[in-house]
Amino acid sequence: MRKYTREITEALTGETVHLKGWVQKRRDLGGLIFIDLRDREGLIQVVFNPEVSGSALETAERIRSEFVVSVTGKVLERDPSQYNDNIPTGKIEIMADTVEVLSKAKTPPFQVMDETVSEDVGLKYRYLDLRKPKLQNILKLRHQLNRSVRNFLDNEDFIDIETPVLSKSTPEGARDYLVPSRVHEGEFYALPQSPQIYKQLLMLSGMEKYYQIVKCFRDEDLRADRQPEFTQIDIEMSFTDEEQMLALNERMITQVMRDVKGIEVTTPFPRMTYHQAMSEYGVDKPDTRFDLKLNDLSAFAETIDFKVFRSAVENGGMVKAIVVKGEESNFSRKDIDKLEGYVKTYGAKGLAWLKVKEDALNGPIAKFFNEQNQADLFETLSLENGDLILFVADSEKVVHASLGNLRNKLARDLDLIPENQFNFLWVTDWPLFEYDEDAGRYFAAHHPFTSPKAEDVEKLDEAPEQVLANAYDIVLNGYELGGGSIRIHDASLQEKMFKALGFTDEERDEQFGFLIEAFKYGAPPHGGIAYGLDRFVMLLAGTDNIRDVIAFPKTASAGDLMMNAPSEVSKQQLKELHIDVDIEE
Amino acid sequence: MRKYTREITEALTGETVHLKGWVQKRRDLGGLIFIDLRDREGLIQVVFNPEVSGSALETAERIRSEFVVSVTGKVLERDPSQYNDNIPTGKIEIMADTVEVLSKAKTPPFQVMDETVSEDVGLKYRYLDLRKPKLQNILKLRHQLNRSVRNFLDNEDFIDIETPVLSKSTPEGARDYLVPSRVHEGEFYALPQSPQIYKQLLMLSGMEKYYQIVKCFRDEDLRADRQPEFTQIDIEMSFTDEEQMLALNERMITQVMRDVKGIEVTTPFPRMTYHQAMSEYGVDKPDTRFDLKLNDLSAFAETIDFKVFRSAVENGGMVKAIVVKGEESNFSRKDIDKLEGYVKTYGAKGLAWLKVKEDALNGPIAKFFNEQNQADLFETLSLENGDLILFVADSEKVVHASLGNLRNKLARDLDLIPENQFNFLWVTDWPLFEYDEDAGRYFAAHHPFTSPKAEDVEKLDEAPEQVLANAYDIVLNGYELGGGSIRIHDASLQEKMFKALGFTDEERDEQFGFLIEAFKYGAPPHGGIAYGLDRFVMLLAGTDNIRDVIAFPKTASAGDLMMNAPSEVSKQQLKELHIDVDIEE
Repeated sequence: MRKYTREITEALTGETVHLKGWVQKRRDLGGLIFIDLRDREGLIQVVFNPEVSGSALETAERIRSEFVVSVTGKVLERDPSQYNDNIPTGKIEIMADTVEVLSKAKTPPFQVMDETVSEDVGLKYRYLDLRKPKLQNILKLRHQLNRSVRNFLDNEDFIDIETPVLSKSTPEGARDYLVPSRVHEGEFYALPQSPQIYKQLLMLSGMEKYYQIVKCFRDEDLRADRQPEFTQIDIEMSFTDEEQMLALNERMITQVMRDVKGIEVTTPFPRMTYHQAMSEYGVDKPDTRFDLKLNDLSAFAETIDFKVFRSAVENGGMVKAIVVKGEESNFSRKDIDKLEGYVKTYGAKGLAWLKVKEDALNGPIAKFFNEQNQADLFETLSLENGDLILFVADSEKVVHASLGNLRNKLARDLDLIPENQFNFLWVTDWPLFEYDEDAGRYFAAHHPFTSPKAEDVEKLDEAPEQVLANAYDIVLNGYELGGGSIRIHDASLQEKMFKALGFTDEERDEQFGFLIEAFKYGAPPHGGIAYGLDRFVMLLAGTDNIRDVIAFPKTASAGDLMMNAPSEVSKQQLKELHIDVDIEE
Repeated sequence: MRKYTREITEALTGETVHLKGWVQKRRDLGGLIFIDLRDREGLIQVVFNPEVSGSALETAERIRSEFVVSVTGKVLERDPSQYNDNIPTGKIEIMADTVEVLSKAKTPPFQVMDETVSEDVGLKYRYLDLRKPKLQNILKLRHQLNRSVRNFLDNEDFIDIETPVLSKSTPEGARDYLVPSRVHEGEFYALPQSPQIYKQLLMLSGMEKYYQIVKCFRDEDLRADRQPEFTQIDIEMSFTDEEQMLALNERMITQVMRDVKGIEVTTPFPRMTYHQAMSEYGVDKPDTRFDLKLNDLSAFAETIDFKVFRSAVENGGMVKAIVVKGEESNFSRKDIDKLEGYVKTYGAKGLAWLKVKEDALNGPIAKFFNEQNQADLFETLSLENGDLILFVADSEKVVHASLGNLRNKLARDLDLIPENQFNFLWVTDWPLFEYDEDAGRYFAAHHPFTSPKAEDVEKLDEAPEQVLANAYDIVLNGYELGGGSIRIHDASLQEKMFKALGFTDEERDEQFGFLIEAFKYGAPPHGGIAYGLDRFVMLLAGTDNIRDVIAFPKTASAGDLMMNAPSEVSKQQLKELHIDVDIEE
């Protein structure tokens, strides 16, 4: 019976075992041959000794890296001087009686354990890159996470229901991937950006508790943490409210963290309104593992004779500052110039700064602060010698974007982020709409099916920007892990919502008429949430490359370098689909 | 705390409970109002009595079918004369204290419990059709089946790994669904027909045990039991052989049948070679729940003076017969004519027949049988009075197709199929190739990665039609439930295989070069299987309509009647994808 390497322990010393795997390395030493045998579960040293088996040694002489072999031999304790503390099996080795080559290997384009191989070469030979224990362990973690979520939801009476991949294109949201229909000439399916409408229809059908771990698709320009296809943990529930949904998700995350990381999280998770998050952290997904909060100095700014600050406030903007405690001496003029360059990428016109030395403010703008101003600032910001203060004065949007991102950058640069800490946080009370300057209309901040707070419904027509939503995001260490909401389940409210989004009645009926009709036949109150599984795995695995958590990822240009996809297809195929390629010269 | 209706039992008599659900029916009787309240788990009767709560009764008066309500009331035992044996809660009812209308409903286009609604109307209002307990129970069974499979494979150390949906088009196999690329002009992804190549690459990467429950896609003309997207239970394993694979799958099915149906199956499952299946049952997926086997009379046919039989054999064909025991008097001339019409759809030129009466053969062809022939036939077929014998004389292909299908039809017509019996069967030793007359070349009977039996490898060049494969199908009650094989893991054998399939070296390298290259870096022996999940659910649920097992199925023309998909898209969308619609006038 074949064993995994990790099953071989000192307890088996003296016993004969049978192993299969890949040869990671061969070393010849003093008439003996040593190979490191790798399987899915680890690594073990196998020794070939002519006094034990001449024929095994003979075979071993032909063995090269990445050969697949089957080995039988006796488990021996190593001499303590030969212990290898880097591997769990480092105190033992296998004295080979027999070895069989199951498959030969030519010299691979890179050594499996080589971490320096370029990403493109790794992707082209993905099956070799995936031999790295690091990547295999991430895929195992992903499986554990999946399994933990499923176990939890199964036990809570949720039903895993599949929804279509060949779906319908809708104009709200990101760009769709399209699939031409052969049967319906000139028509197209779309790959779903989420199963949102289907899961709501399942609630209308009375399934009550639905979940799915499901591929979704967005044809957007790729970023480091994006892939054209991504996986969602998708959950929906009837007869629920926001409190119940948050509690359910906290129970789920508690189980996941226990199963996958062996960590006990504390519930309930902290909560923060969207307004508070933006105001204190400058971003809608605060990383609460470190402090460095934003301080609002807008009122203070009006008391000092510094035009940059005053005019920002007078023009409807604000002044906010971050205090970097005790670090002033570590920031040279040049360092601060670099930080200014950084905030400029978020639209700030500049980064004002002060240092606190010998109980006084220092720096180019210190001269604008009179004695009273200085005293006020010391009190407001609880300043101490050694502090560095970084200010941005601008519109609310620019102040928050620049300082919010600067805050995260400073924490990384100053190494303020504790390792192995998982700070979950709910961000609630989101605005229902976002105004898009270019399009000149409101868009749904989450999606058009999110319900407004009951007390804000009357503002839908007149002051949509003031309407808050029954929406909640779960944030982990500064990343949006998932988002959800209590949905609209009333046809007339859904119609109002589309009106606020600028849909004509015709557009609404054409695109979402069936859904509004569906709401008219007995729709239960319902809500749900969707998690980005890939990102969840990234955060738990501690990697910042999304390709590490996907077995066969695409490149930044959405290509598969191994299979060479996408690729050209035959004229016959296009003809059957009633389409032509139309490339602009 | 809200309860499901199924949680309300006589044990709760006298207690106050809280329920939520849909109103299936309202009846007014003697000043009282009765409603049947339906939730995901069942049905219960709620009574409104003016002496208990006038305001609840008042609200109840406004309630209509499919309203969503929240009810609080006391559990009462019914008077035995009022027991409803049709529902588990039939001995009790809820005396309502309060009722709240959560959602109104206008009169639906059909009553939820109406089984006669046309399929098109049901699909258009799928969310109403899905309120039927029958369909909800099937989706629950599907979930249970999924869960059972996952639990089994998780415990056997298999890892659930996702593979890409945006994949590459390959010319072998069925027609692909294509997805135009925006970034790579004029190029297309294909939706996968199966994750076959990916899972083999995962074996090459050393993941050892993989599974996935995964959507696959085929753009084929639809049949009753086909959908454009379908779900596979996909399994692959390294360092395995056929015996191990069959045993693994028998353990899995044992657990599934126990978990889902509460049935203990007997293992090992019966096995039959492909040759035996075709010879005795005429089909490659025999239904072994009944007898009616095919009897080969080719040798006998040469002994009688009946040209139809003799010439079939002389032309390289055969004569086979089915004996329908004791049923001759139930088959009129007209009945047999109908059977003849049936076999003609499978290419038979006619259906010869004999009846056994008073120890003699009767019927139009009886005259061709002399005394010796009669005696021989009686002995060969163990004939008894009352038997009906049905013969087809033709090519092997036609004889098997017509009698194999006739056999299944007779079993259905004569009600020979026992209910609630699940006959699992392995069909092994498949031919590696199928010859396609139209294309004038061999195709892979399963797929090009299936390994030939070791002893047949040398016939690959000269006599491919004689090569048997290490392939196995799992058959349940006459349906192919799944199929798998031990794969090729040797680059040169894989190259031979493509040669036998008529690929030029260039075609092979262009389409599968990366895979053959992959085999050169240490490929473990491996094999796997894939189950059609939708069909598995159909068979366990006892439905013959595949749409019953899918939440949102497509029509026979691959359309979604509810969402109206596929649909036209904007010119802007097409432009971004570098394609034009090209409809022939």
